[in-house]
Amino acid sequence: MEKFFYPRSMAVIGASVKRTNLGHIIVLNNRRNGYEGNIYGVGSKEGDIAGAPVFDSVDKLPEVPDVAIIISPAKTVPDFMEACGKKGIKRIVIESGGFSEYSKGERTMEKKLLEIADRYNIRFIGPNCVGTVNFDIKMMMPFGFFPGTPTGGRVAMIVQSGGVGSSYLRELGDNAIIPGKFAAIGNKLQLDEVDVFEYLLKDEKTDIITMYMEGFKRGRAFFDLALKSDKPIIVQKSNRSALTASIAQSHTTALSADDTVVDGCFRQAAIIRAEDDIDFISAAKIIRLPLMKSRRVAVLSRSGGHAVMTVDACAKFGFSLVDFPPAFIETIKTIYHTRIIAHQNPLDLGEIFDYTIFTKILEEALKLPEVDGVLFNHLYVSSYEAEMSREFLSSVGRLVEQYQKPVAVTVITDAPELLNISRTQRYPLFTTPLMAAKALNMSATYYEEKTARDTRGGNIPYPIDLAAISKIKSLCQAEKRNPLTDEALQIAKAAGIRCVPGVTVKSAKEAGTVNINFPVAVKLLSRAASHKSDVGGVRLKINNHKELAQAISGMKKTFKNISPRPAIDGFLIQKMADEGVECFVGGRQDPVFGPIVIAGLGGVFLEIFKDTAIRLAPITKSEAMDMLKNLKAYPVLQGARGKMKADIEAFADVICRVSQLLSTVTEVVEIDLNPVIVHETDKGVSIVDCRVFFR
Amino acid sequence: MEKFFYPRSMAVIGASVKRTNLGHIIVLNNRRNGYEGNIYGVGSKEGDIAGAPVFDSVDKLPEVPDVAIIISPAKTVPDFMEACGKKGIKRIVIESGGFSEYSKGERTMEKKLLEIADRYNIRFIGPNCVGTVNFDIKMMMPFGFFPGTPTGGRVAMIVQSGGVGSSYLRELGDNAIIPGKFAAIGNKLQLDEVDVFEYLLKDEKTDIITMYMEGFKRGRAFFDLALKSDKPIIVQKSNRSALTASIAQSHTTALSADDTVVDGCFRQAAIIRAEDDIDFISAAKIIRLPLMKSRRVAVLSRSGGHAVMTVDACAKFGFSLVDFPPAFIETIKTIYHTRIIAHQNPLDLGEIFDYTIFTKILEEALKLPEVDGVLFNHLYVSSYEAEMSREFLSSVGRLVEQYQKPVAVTVITDAPELLNISRTQRYPLFTTPLMAAKALNMSATYYEEKTARDTRGGNIPYPIDLAAISKIKSLCQAEKRNPLTDEALQIAKAAGIRCVPGVTVKSAKEAGTVNINFPVAVKLLSRAASHKSDVGGVRLKINNHKELAQAISGMKKTFKNISPRPAIDGFLIQKMADEGVECFVGGRQDPVFGPIVIAGLGGVFLEIFKDTAIRLAPITKSEAMDMLKNLKAYPVLQGARGKMKADIEAFADVICRVSQLLSTVTEVVEIDLNPVIVHETDKGVSIVDCRVFFR
Repeated sequence: MEKFFYPRSMAVIGASVKRTNLGHIIVLNNRRNGYEGNIYGVGSKEGDIAGAPVFDSVDKLPEVPDVAIIISPAKTVPDFMEACGKKGIKRIVIESGGFSEYSKGERTMEKKLLEIADRYNIRFIGPNCVGTVNFDIKMMMPFGFFPGTPTGGRVAMIVQSGGVGSSYLRELGDNAIIPGKFAAIGNKLQLDEVDVFEYLLKDEKTDIITMYMEGFKRGRAFFDLALKSDKPIIVQKSNRSALTASIAQSHTTALSADDTVVDGCFRQAAIIRAEDDIDFISAAKIIRLPLMKSRRVAVLSRSGGHAVMTVDACAKFGFSLVDFPPAFIETIKTIYHTRIIAHQNPLDLGEIFDYTIFTKILEEALKLPEVDGVLFNHLYVSSYEAEMSREFLSSVGRLVEQYQKPVAVTVITDAPELLNISRTQRYPLFTTPLMAAKALNMSATYYEEKTARDTRGGNIPYPIDLAAISKIKSLCQAEKRNPLTDEALQIAKAAGIRCVPGVTVKSAKEAGTVNINFPVAVKLLSRAASHKSDVGGVRLKINNHKELAQAISGMKKTFKNISPRPAIDGFLIQKMADEGVECFVGGRQDPVFGPIVIAGLGGVFLEIFKDTAIRLAPITKSEAMDMLKNLKAYPVLQGARGKMKADIEAFADVICRVSQLLSTVTEVVEIDLNPVIVHETDKGVSIVDCRVFFR
Repeated sequence: MEKFFYPRSMAVIGASVKRTNLGHIIVLNNRRNGYEGNIYGVGSKEGDIAGAPVFDSVDKLPEVPDVAIIISPAKTVPDFMEACGKKGIKRIVIESGGFSEYSKGERTMEKKLLEIADRYNIRFIGPNCVGTVNFDIKMMMPFGFFPGTPTGGRVAMIVQSGGVGSSYLRELGDNAIIPGKFAAIGNKLQLDEVDVFEYLLKDEKTDIITMYMEGFKRGRAFFDLALKSDKPIIVQKSNRSALTASIAQSHTTALSADDTVVDGCFRQAAIIRAEDDIDFISAAKIIRLPLMKSRRVAVLSRSGGHAVMTVDACAKFGFSLVDFPPAFIETIKTIYHTRIIAHQNPLDLGEIFDYTIFTKILEEALKLPEVDGVLFNHLYVSSYEAEMSREFLSSVGRLVEQYQKPVAVTVITDAPELLNISRTQRYPLFTTPLMAAKALNMSATYYEEKTARDTRGGNIPYPIDLAAISKIKSLCQAEKRNPLTDEALQIAKAAGIRCVPGVTVKSAKEAGTVNINFPVAVKLLSRAASHKSDVGGVRLKINNHKELAQAISGMKKTFKNISPRPAIDGFLIQKMADEGVECFVGGRQDPVFGPIVIAGLGGVFLEIFKDTAIRLAPITKSEAMDMLKNLKAYPVLQGARGKMKADIEAFADVICRVSQLLSTVTEVVEIDLNPVIVHETDKGVSIVDCRVFFR
């Protein structure tokens, strides 16, 4: 990737002397901006763009440029690529659109590009993108222009949409955040987000990586890298709903992933998820400050009304308001006297117009060990207080460094002043109390997730009886079917998951001979009916052999009336499980993120509230516990509603083992343990049903 | 209120010639701004402020001003008020702080103010406020200055915080929305939000009423007025959490109300609730456009990435994307050709740079009967497209008027241009796709709620047997207790609510003689145990007389071991109810909003998810149905999870009758029917338990 960010020379293919030509604009931008490498144009006619020569063929270029940028119509791209290959060019950015984002029919052209790249050992970004920018060397491949950006920025950005990318770059600038490296990767036909991400993780000039993604091409590889990153990673993943999937497809051929999988992945790897564009910029602002290490805040406000709004926002994010200790109140009383406003948290500074007092009070608040972060509402009149406000913000910056705690400042002033102060001083500002609190929440959440990630230790592999699974798999393969219920339960057992024992019989008669403690349940085993209950293949609470025989005969009769009639491979007789909370554990091989594990409570929690937690497998016990804590229904497991506390440990153990199974035996494309009946503490779980699908 | 907005003369008490004096600033603001009425100062020394004379006593004022503004220290206010009374001044604004918002000890001073006002027949706003502004006559009581605001604005604002009010006024201006009348009402000791609201509802120069409230003093009166309002009402109600209640108290002595009650009230009266400051301004912007009459949208975007974000936002608010009909696609193909982008919704306009095409396509989209509103993402480069963008927005405004459908335009450009265009042209702009979609959601929700409100008709009073209730009340009063379970069930019956019949007995022996169909339930009747089940006072599924006698004796034994031992007033024997969905209906007399009714499903829905719906009583059947539809658990009533559809009509009927009872018999301060077992369609409900509390 290095040469895509530090090209010593570039050729823009599809450039002409016409001023509205996009290739022309790219050449011009680099010339005007001060890019010091050589830059050439290649177009249909020879000429000159601001001193850069334009040649009428790739062949005529006076040197082999580090990067060629192709911005000619789609149908001409393969030939130009071929010419680049012949010339010996090894790095190409294809900015042209009109490939798979438009219609599937263009896929053959994409194949051709890959074939040419393979043949000449070319690495390329795109098509349908605006390429890279390296502000440090004033190099910019997009046709958008970002003049006057200072060098030395340490915030990198990877985007899947050039339009979004350029507006975000501009917004960073409007907030005095200097961008360093930028890449818009478009259709990701060859190089993708992971290639750029991996480079930026290692790049010594990058501290923070931000991304706007509509889909991940290699989610698992991205996750594995992110897991080990000490650099904060901020990702806005759009294309979240069923409504968007088809559009994003046409836009940049983004692979849509289940949004809940993305949430799980981000939480595990401590990736900061920006919900929208405002969040994206807020995250980039707050993450430059020391992190908030817990959720106890002090609120200082120059307006009582804004203090109320701030505290509302704090409540929303689970912050607690520190009770100011008496010593603190005594100290601030020595700093200023008031008759009107109480010395409490939030502290209303409405009466004070002396800025040195703000700084003193802020410092006292930061000194308090029980304060993890401060929210400061700064309302001011620009005509009187503009200069003082700038000095104050410098002091805030110094105090934040000194005490290593974040201070989120909300500035309320007239719009021209707000714009001006945001652009011209470096301390990050927010424009509403909610935005400030949300930013602190991102900081605190990142700290929590990163700490959990970095302290959870490696996975201790759970033993799996591979031979047992292999045997069932062979049998299923031979018979071209998925495992029957009893086989699925054996696979779970091979993964160390204890299921309720059962006996398999072929007939009502055979059932009469089995030695089992009643009450029992009986279930159809059928290669053709994976949802047994849909065909009436499950009978519960059978109290004796007579009822058992009746149940089996009854089922057989029922099946005669079902079309197509389900094949009967036998009947599984199991002891009825004791009472407990009905839960489930499942998982699958996700095409983007690899093995994932899913858990939650059954019934209305699953069906009405979609209350599930997802993680990328395998997971440790602490991750499994975290999954459960994430559930809205967690209080039920903890014994809400006057019930006993459930055996959460045992439940977590099952989740871990399922995750291990999916990671180790990737031929298992889907597994579903449902219900997992979680009994009270120390009484374990009962797993009475399991479904497994092989690849 | 008229004179508070149209004073022909004003005196500012507490004004001095010192330039930092707040009273001085108020006089100066009015002089500089062009207020044409007479304005005087009253202070400790005589003098002159920009031509306005300052007198050293109220008595010396050369006329009786329409309004006196008091901004002197709190302790001096009563004397000044007395002096105003003697002078014959009938309208006062007390801007001074330091009353009950500071400490309860100052309440005596508040009482004194009320007493003086009573004596002289004075109407006053405040204390602790900044008073009113009438931009039409350039009159401004706050010490903040809003120069150059045009006249003729038709948006009014009532706020409870001067700081919030002035920042919102400024923000309106930054969005080319001209404010008309403004009132900051502070502690609302005498005049309150309802007085100002009532005036503005009638005011012919006000079209839209916006409010920032931290609490309602007279919630019910506000609701009753709002119910009949044809003017859109936008309210940001902060002070939503337990965390804020005590602060808002100290800030402006706001009465905190249960936030869910506020939600119910707003929905019923079609009041637009702004969640935060951004929403507040967004609502004021969108509500000036024609309303969105359903939720079908077209998305037009100059950037594919922003189109994806927009559609994500649409999904969030339950919008559907219209499938463009073939005729529409044919039409736009005649408007422009493309090779690169598909003609679909969202429509990516990335290739087009001709603004006349934007207008044509927008018009075609608005023409489609299946389109209720349009989201347009307008990204542009200010150096080239600033002028064209202004013309385009004028065209958008014309089309919106012509087709009477809203178009929410998101503008993405550099910050100085954004500020400039927002201020200088009148079409409302949004700055992120989410904000635009959220605004359209407010428009659509307002339309839905207003339509429901205006078509639901009046309440048909349900008959109530007042004599029966009165009898029980008298008995309870005589015995100084609340109704026992059987009496509570009789009260419900008197309100037309059919409960499961029961027989009351005094002993196990008497129980043996009752003629009832088993199985039955038996419940303790006790004046000392309203939660029967907490003391073991409920036994279910009793199958015969023997079990019944045992149950009653068993209970009696249990009570002997409970301290204090519950009084035994008898035992209620009821037939066991059939199966159904366990729900509840309750209600109370809310101190702010009067009678309210609450309903929902029991179990985890109530206890874990707090899934309840609240309305102000009495309600019509359609409101009761709307309550149920608002529940997250509504699918359960509709028969999700393979169950039968519940008798929603019968459930709604119970809710209406409870609401009627609370409205008619206000001595019932609380009622709780729990459980209300809702059976399948046409099978009604079974109410087996009821608690009632009298005042």
